Amino acid sequence: MINPTYKQMLQGKSVIRELSEYATARGKEIGYENVFDYSLGNPSVPCAPSFTDAMIDLLEHSDPVAIHGYSPSLGIQSVRASVADSLNRRFGMHYEAKHIFMTSGAAGAVAHAIRCVTQPGDEVLTFAPFFPEYRPYVNQTGAVLKIVPANTDTFQINFEAFEEMLTDKVAAVLINTPNNPSGIVYSTETITRLADLLRRKQEEYRHDIFLVSDEPYREIVFAGVDAPFVGQFYDNTITCYSFSKSLSLPGERIGYLAVNPNATDADIIAVICGQISRGIGHNCPPSIIQLAVSKVIDQTSDLSVYETNMNLIYDKLIELGFTVVKPGGTFYIFPKALEDDAKAFCMKAKQYDLILVPADDFGCPGYFRMAYCIDTEKVVRSLTVLEQFVREEYGVKA
Amino acid sequence: MINPTYKQMLQGKSVIRELSEYATARGKEIGYENVFDYSLGNPSVPCAPSFTDAMIDLLEHSDPVAIHGYSPSLGIQSVRASVADSLNRRFGMHYEAKHIFMTSGAAGAVAHAIRCVTQPGDEVLTFAPFFPEYRPYVNQTGAVLKIVPANTDTFQINFEAFEEMLTDKVAAVLINTPNNPSGIVYSTETITRLADLLRRKQEEYRHDIFLVSDEPYREIVFAGVDAPFVGQFYDNTITCYSFSKSLSLPGERIGYLAVNPNATDADIIAVICGQISRGIGHNCPPSIIQLAVSKVIDQTSDLSVYETNMNLIYDKLIELGFTVVKPGGTFYIFPKALEDDAKAFCMKAKQYDLILVPADDFGCPGYFRMAYCIDTEKVVRSLTVLEQFVREEYGVKA
Repeated sequence: MINPTYKQMLQGKSVIRELSEYATARGKEIGYENVFDYSLGNPSVPCAPSFTDAMIDLLEHSDPVAIHGYSPSLGIQSVRASVADSLNRRFGMHYEAKHIFMTSGAAGAVAHAIRCVTQPGDEVLTFAPFFPEYRPYVNQTGAVLKIVPANTDTFQINFEAFEEMLTDKVAAVLINTPNNPSGIVYSTETITRLADLLRRKQEEYRHDIFLVSDEPYREIVFAGVDAPFVGQFYDNTITCYSFSKSLSLPGERIGYLAVNPNATDADIIAVICGQISRGIGHNCPPSIIQLAVSKVIDQTSDLSVYETNMNLIYDKLIELGFTVVKPGGTFYIFPKALEDDAKAFCMKAKQYDLILVPADDFGCPGYFRMAYCIDTEKVVRSLTVLEQFVREEYGVKA
Repeated sequence: MINPTYKQMLQGKSVIRELSEYATARGKEIGYENVFDYSLGNPSVPCAPSFTDAMIDLLEHSDPVAIHGYSPSLGIQSVRASVADSLNRRFGMHYEAKHIFMTSGAAGAVAHAIRCVTQPGDEVLTFAPFFPEYRPYVNQTGAVLKIVPANTDTFQINFEAFEEMLTDKVAAVLINTPNNPSGIVYSTETITRLADLLRRKQEEYRHDIFLVSDEPYREIVFAGVDAPFVGQFYDNTITCYSFSKSLSLPGERIGYLAVNPNATDADIIAVICGQISRGIGHNCPPSIIQLAVSKVIDQTSDLSVYETNMNLIYDKLIELGFTVVKPGGTFYIFPKALEDDAKAFCMKAKQYDLILVPADDFGCPGYFRMAYCIDTEKVVRSLTVLEQFVREEYGVKA
């Protein structure tokens, strides 16, 4: 019999996916260039040419038995070492290869980290607004995801609500900076205060509280914004990374998990992740992709388009009177809708072929997300449509 | 706190892995060419050149945003369609793309299939000798793996023991043909009898019993051996495949699960597998690898070396008086040890730098496995050493 737990999951369709499918279908009717699709966080810039070169070089000049052979289940040793070296060089850390576990993107890293440091029934806290896939990542481990309400003034942490929810039952805290969907980067002050509070509570409760830091947008940070490395602030940090956004390789499912060398059980967490992987039959990310990213470990695609797009959109939103916090990174912006019901707002926008995602699933009703990983030319055209939409529907004039 | 379930898994080290690590270490001492390493099932032949060409062609001539973009979580639609077409063409089946779910090799396929068709507490039956990783694949779903004892005369199914164990609690039966570790291919007679029995028990118990058919060695079948396609015999079949062995790409983690179109819930099993994937953060196999294998879907590497090696080893084993069933496929052979304790036998062989794997973990004590995916030249040299070993240790003369 089909497992009823999973069968039930089929009911809850993702709003993002529905909107994205709508946009694709609508594009077939009126031409995709006329659909202003802000639904999906799919990088719009090509991967770094050096990545393509690295792949071709491996395919043309290496022994195929070696490059396509089984990877050790924790990742290829030289690749793990090159990740550790890169983090140490860039952030003054002291990782060794044994602290690195290669994963299927940040998704795989977060899901493994949570499974590793929780037991069924434990609580995991995250902060609204949050990436909706955190629900299945946490729920399928048997742990319970609880959402700390947003601080909508700044989208930094709402410490009052957080401290209240940070009970003895909490085994892990899951953060995402730079943040999807708000675009906000946690400040040094926020992370310091978070780390201090966690240390205090660890002492009070006499057990570890792990900080799982989901950082796929680490390299997309805008001018003048400081993006501190979370692992520097708190020993029990597990850093989750993906090359999806930095190298524009979302489909290649490559990322890693880095365990702070000072964490409790630091030397066995990666090994335990290997055991978790065994149980799901997913033994390692693809060998050739591991080898290729390790050759371009400190490089990125040309990510400048995201900041260009952000500035255009932010300025227009402000001009139109929206309440919006200026993003410090990512390719998301998170304005307040012009009516309380963000779903209704986004439905109206859809009539203008403007695809916006209401933020109910992100734990922040009344707001909406725009994923501006699209061509700048299209952003410019969309803003005229946005202006027309809010004028006609809400009487707003620039 | 680290999850104690996974922590405990660290105790049970894999014998295969230990022996393989020993072989590598020993190779550094005396030269790897002098270690006769039959431990690991890692393909020894290069991938098909057409696969390399397909990869380079994609990298050089396709839009990088398209080829490295997110795959839908069930797999790229055109790739799923090409898998269905290939199976239909080769085996007279009627799969559609919706019946195909792209996976991380056969391991991912088996783990997803079991999770999909069982609930915690259900029993899953498999047949000795069996691939030891079936334990974590099944145990981590909460189902219970039970092992039907081997029929050591032929390594076909021991139907007497099977029927006795096939109680109302059994939700799935997991088979592997061609078989690791025995090298045996299930005959038409075996599969027919298996299917008849399952149908009878489904009727008796009034619930589905799924047949999960693990087939990574499907393309490695030797002259004169007929390897029937299991899905033709039984409606509730989920076929699990990997390109690891056929294309020599074990590290690239690419395979699929194919749901018989006549199975119960056939149209939603792949979708449910997508939900399972979400929960483990592993959304899809790498895009570029999916695209490349679909371009060479009916091709294989040159796999002829495995049959050459098998014949050399089989003839020598017979000459030396071993009890052994002639393999019909794979790159494994599974003789009976020359003393009851196969571990002791293999420890003695190790003194001759002959790395054999005792079969206790495969559920068949007293036997050992040789993975002959190594160069033929090395096989030839190893047989002289094998002869010397059994003469000196067991007084056997050819």
